[in-house]
Amino acid sequence: MTVAGVGEFGLIDRVTARLTYGESVLLGPGDDAAMVAAPDRRVVASTDVLVEGRHFRRDWSGARDVGHRAAAANLADIAAMGATPTALLVALCMPAELDTAWAEELADGLGAEAALVGASVVGGDMSASPTLTIAVTALGDLAGRPPVVRSGARPGDVVALAGRTGWAAAGYTVLSRGFRTPRLLVEAFRRPEVPYPAGPEAARAGATAMIDVSDGLLADLGHVARASGVAIDVTREAFEVPRQMRDAAQALGVDPYSWILAGGDDHALAATFPGTATLPSGWRPVGRVAEGAGVTVDGRAYEGPAGWDHFRRAE
Amino acid sequence: MTVAGVGEFGLIDRVTARLTYGESVLLGPGDDAAMVAAPDRRVVASTDVLVEGRHFRRDWSGARDVGHRAAAANLADIAAMGATPTALLVALCMPAELDTAWAEELADGLGAEAALVGASVVGGDMSASPTLTIAVTALGDLAGRPPVVRSGARPGDVVALAGRTGWAAAGYTVLSRGFRTPRLLVEAFRRPEVPYPAGPEAARAGATAMIDVSDGLLADLGHVARASGVAIDVTREAFEVPRQMRDAAQALGVDPYSWILAGGDDHALAATFPGTATLPSGWRPVGRVAEGAGVTVDGRAYEGPAGWDHFRRAE
Repeated sequence: MTVAGVGEFGLIDRVTARLTYGESVLLGPGDDAAMVAAPDRRVVASTDVLVEGRHFRRDWSGARDVGHRAAAANLADIAAMGATPTALLVALCMPAELDTAWAEELADGLGAEAALVGASVVGGDMSASPTLTIAVTALGDLAGRPPVVRSGARPGDVVALAGRTGWAAAGYTVLSRGFRTPRLLVEAFRRPEVPYPAGPEAARAGATAMIDVSDGLLADLGHVARASGVAIDVTREAFEVPRQMRDAAQALGVDPYSWILAGGDDHALAATFPGTATLPSGWRPVGRVAEGAGVTVDGRAYEGPAGWDHFRRAE
Repeated sequence: MTVAGVGEFGLIDRVTARLTYGESVLLGPGDDAAMVAAPDRRVVASTDVLVEGRHFRRDWSGARDVGHRAAAANLADIAAMGATPTALLVALCMPAELDTAWAEELADGLGAEAALVGASVVGGDMSASPTLTIAVTALGDLAGRPPVVRSGARPGDVVALAGRTGWAAAGYTVLSRGFRTPRLLVEAFRRPEVPYPAGPEAARAGATAMIDVSDGLLADLGHVARASGVAIDVTREAFEVPRQMRDAAQALGVDPYSWILAGGDDHALAATFPGTATLPSGWRPVGRVAEGAGVTVDGRAYEGPAGWDHFRRAE
């Protein structure tokens, strides 16, 4: 059955029937708007959009995978503020001939990823469109803490990372060369493993700045350096190249550090902490903040591609 | 200059430079997420998406018009809960060859419509896409009141309307027949005039149910009737056909009541009030709630089209 055959309201009924709601949901889908708890009188909110052919391909990822990734991209933004995600809203644009099962499985993936952090899909909208597009808005709660913004890094701070980088980019390269294995890399592209709790933990531990690594580690640290008016130097030695990644890099003729340092879409969290801080569990040091501007690797400009731009990125 | 030429970050800089921020904005664009005040520990949230060729056409509406309409569709959903909008987040998908001026003017329209109610554009995302698509999420504040949901209508309630219906549909018909006038109708399609304050006012006056009229009055009252488990009868005589609409209807061979009763996208607000309530200013009675099911006009089934479905709607 196609989405056009079921119709807008039929599809909304099918999708909402599959959702479950956490305790932050005061009013779920079905009305003009949802209502979500904002216990500390503030709400953190972020929007990310995934476009078929640019952020995902249906022959590379199942609908459930795309749901996981669309949710992860947004939930990671909330975690990167030091907040705990509470709710997702989803605008889904679909070709009329799309099978309803695709939309239903997408909702399953969105809901399952949100449930990892106790969040829920609380609302959304659907429309026909020639281009399959998923725009997600995530809401979150800071539990009374100040948000950890990009502009707080100070000279002398330690740069630390929670989660992994390079895996999604490696999986993307594998798929784009027509392979389906190594499975670990391909799965990392399909469903990022985001260290959500590391965000609030970093905030509690006194992180001075934090960012979700979506454009690539060096590019995202570049955002922090620019916003904070500082220089950041990354230590290449801090990154071990996992065996699967090394083997794939060799087979594909790629420098694995181009994945690790410049690959996006793993949604690791990068943060800066005062030099005296004890890093919370799950965080490891990868560099230093200094006076100046820009991002270097072992004190030198990085020669490879630094990240991607969603208007220029080649497929 | 095209959006691809300026690039994702360049365009984000250009657009955010044009925005202004109301007092609910605790942290605006530029970080992983925005932060918005939620004074009563709850946030109302709604998402609506506009797709080129389906919800708007660039040869019918300017970018600023589309921004006004995209914002209005979402702000009206917040008002229909009885809430005051505080913030918008915008996911904008654009063909790479789109002129940046279009995106900038769209942002102007979004910001100007939001400013009508003291709300602000606080964040978003941009991506290239073959299909120009604007997904907007609106947040709002209930000031401690319970939300006015669709399910509260009771037999004996009065059905009332704030704002106008049929104007956007008339303008749409005019444009779709290749005309550019009457200007009043065309402008109503381009920029709906939403009675935002009527939403919170209805909540304060004891409205039992409320909905934003986006699918068409009878279709949206059908949502209220179904959610509330009641019947609704609309009085045709309650609707005067304005002169411009009557003339256009005659010239185009259309029954103007098909616009008024079934046309969407004016974003009027429809609500039910206890029979004993005094309607707040700006609200006028248009029907009655009774025991039963379904929506009738003067006690009879309505023969015309009841509304539109965004997967089936003919262009």
